[in-house]
Amino acid sequence: MLKKFLPQETDFFSMFEKAALNVNKSAKLLVEMMEDMSISEVKAKEIFEAEQEGDMLTHEVMRKLNKTFLTPVDREDIHSLVCRIDDVVDLIWASVDRAVLFRLKAAPPEAVDLCKTLVETTEFITKAIGCLKDKKYSYIQEYCIEINRLENRGDRIFREALVKLFDNHANDPILVIKWKEVYENLEDATDSCEDVANILESIVLKHA
Amino acid sequence: MLKKFLPQETDFFSMFEKAALNVNKSAKLLVEMMEDMSISEVKAKEIFEAEQEGDMLTHEVMRKLNKTFLTPVDREDIHSLVCRIDDVVDLIWASVDRAVLFRLKAAPPEAVDLCKTLVETTEFITKAIGCLKDKKYSYIQEYCIEINRLENRGDRIFREALVKLFDNHANDPILVIKWKEVYENLEDATDSCEDVANILESIVLKHA
Amino acid sequence: MLKKFLPQETDFFSMFEKAALNVNKSAKLLVEMMEDMSISEVKAKEIFEAEQEGDMLTHEVMRKLNKTFLTPVDREDIHSLVCRIDDVVDLIWASVDRAVLFRLKAAPPEAVDLCKTLVETTEFITKAIGCLKDKKYSYIQEYCIEINRLENRGDRIFREALVKLFDNHANDPILVIKWKEVYENLEDATDSCEDVANILESIVLKHA
Repeated sequence: MLKKFLPQETDFFSMFEKAALNVNKSAKLLVEMMEDMSISEVKAKEIFEAEQEGDMLTHEVMRKLNKTFLTPVDREDIHSLVCRIDDVVDLIWASVDRAVLFRLKAAPPEAVDLCKTLVETTEFITKAIGCLKDKKYSYIQEYCIEINRLENRGDRIFREALVKLFDNHANDPILVIKWKEVYENLEDATDSCEDVANILESIVLKHA
Repeated sequence: MLKKFLPQETDFFSMFEKAALNVNKSAKLLVEMMEDMSISEVKAKEIFEAEQEGDMLTHEVMRKLNKTFLTPVDREDIHSLVCRIDDVVDLIWASVDRAVLFRLKAAPPEAVDLCKTLVETTEFITKAIGCLKDKKYSYIQEYCIEINRLENRGDRIFREALVKLFDNHANDPILVIKWKEVYENLEDATDSCEDVANILESIVLKHA
Repeated sequence: MLKKFLPQETDFFSMFEKAALNVNKSAKLLVEMMEDMSISEVKAKEIFEAEQEGDMLTHEVMRKLNKTFLTPVDREDIHSLVCRIDDVVDLIWASVDRAVLFRLKAAPPEAVDLCKTLVETTEFITKAIGCLKDKKYSYIQEYCIEINRLENRGDRIFREALVKLFDNHANDPILVIKWKEVYENLEDATDSCEDVANILESIVLKHA
């Protein structure tokens, strides 16, 4: 009977895992699209569905948060964690949406690299989140170091991509504007992954 | 005597209503400007005054919040609500300011549509906020659904506007840069309206 | 013995002061770079080091915050204050990084003016933060008025700079894109200074 009132930890954790897997899935679809821009409309539809799925999961966590008295980790950390994870999929969707709207034809290799970095990063996010439930905090810390390393790599690729964009298309400012916006959304997605790592690290710090 | 120490609910609620009406007013002025860009400097002045009025109202709420022991809704919700409402008027002002600085001559029909959507959205915000005081929560939920619907419409118009901008002015990148920035500010204003709806919905969830 | 458990106020305050001095230093380096763009790579390196130093200080504050039971000012205010101060140095670094990546040659006088305003603003931030420890709240309020005044000046310079950029380089859209981004980062840095002032003002309001 009392069980009803006890914190149902597994619920939140499994919802986090679903959200992380959803982001990882959308990053993989993004790579497929960037590698072959002729299929971008097909992939865009799938990524849009992942974005909608992400919104649904976020709302579900919020609703549960409002109805749960005792939470397994700080209420505000649950809130931030799920919002920042959702930011990643939102930004992946935003970059895909622009690429389609702008009718971009072929993606430069740097764009593909940047997206592959997002796949790797979101894999570590999924792994780290999978460790929350069993309080494997030292693993989380290791994964967060990897996420930060990948964020640095992503930042390096983004900056190289910008330089090449301006160098290779100095006489096509419209194309520069279009790809610059796609790159910026991808870079923001990478930054949001780092935010997720920061929240995970602060959860570990509070519980260790 | 004791009354002094009791929560003065009406104060916060009437200040929210003032702030919402102020945003709605600035959205209406924005439509007038977009419909006739030759009067943009005159309208810009009026919208700037609304922006200043918004700042004043926000500061007043903050000051009161710091001096009030018991608040009618959660302290952090009052803070977020008034800040997000102020964001809307700030972003309306930002788009107007850019249009004037950039000496934009005529607004495309999509720009006018986007601004009209903002008028409708801010009307629903005003209505929803008017229901807070009397705890008419089911009305608030209905209005929030309308705000979300209008945000989706605004997003659709914004994306169409971007496509047309790049298609119609492919040989005038400077004009593309200018209108893209105006559109982005308007789109951000629409997003902030959705943030307001989200806060209202979470207030309802906590009190229902 | 008990002293161990008492709030160690000076620690936080001296860390704030270090962070503020670090921002002020990076603003000064930025002016030197803008005045002579031929030395931009040298200065960029120094500003990058300041940015790293800022990150380290922020992490140190966070770590201490998680281990401290009683804090001299509200936990969330310490968090916001140190994050917003770090935003300023991050944005100074972002504008420098873009200027180098984009191989910008000479800075317009407006760019130099905007950076000089940042030096003045961060001096007042340093002064205001120096008054926290001894609770000299009326001084903090005066400095915050100065910061707001300088933010208005920075905003005016930024808008003039934008107008001149579009007027003087109407036939070089690529250059417009590049400088527009540098200016926007500088403008965001000025805005973050205002955020710092707002947090300081709210700390004063709570303790006065």
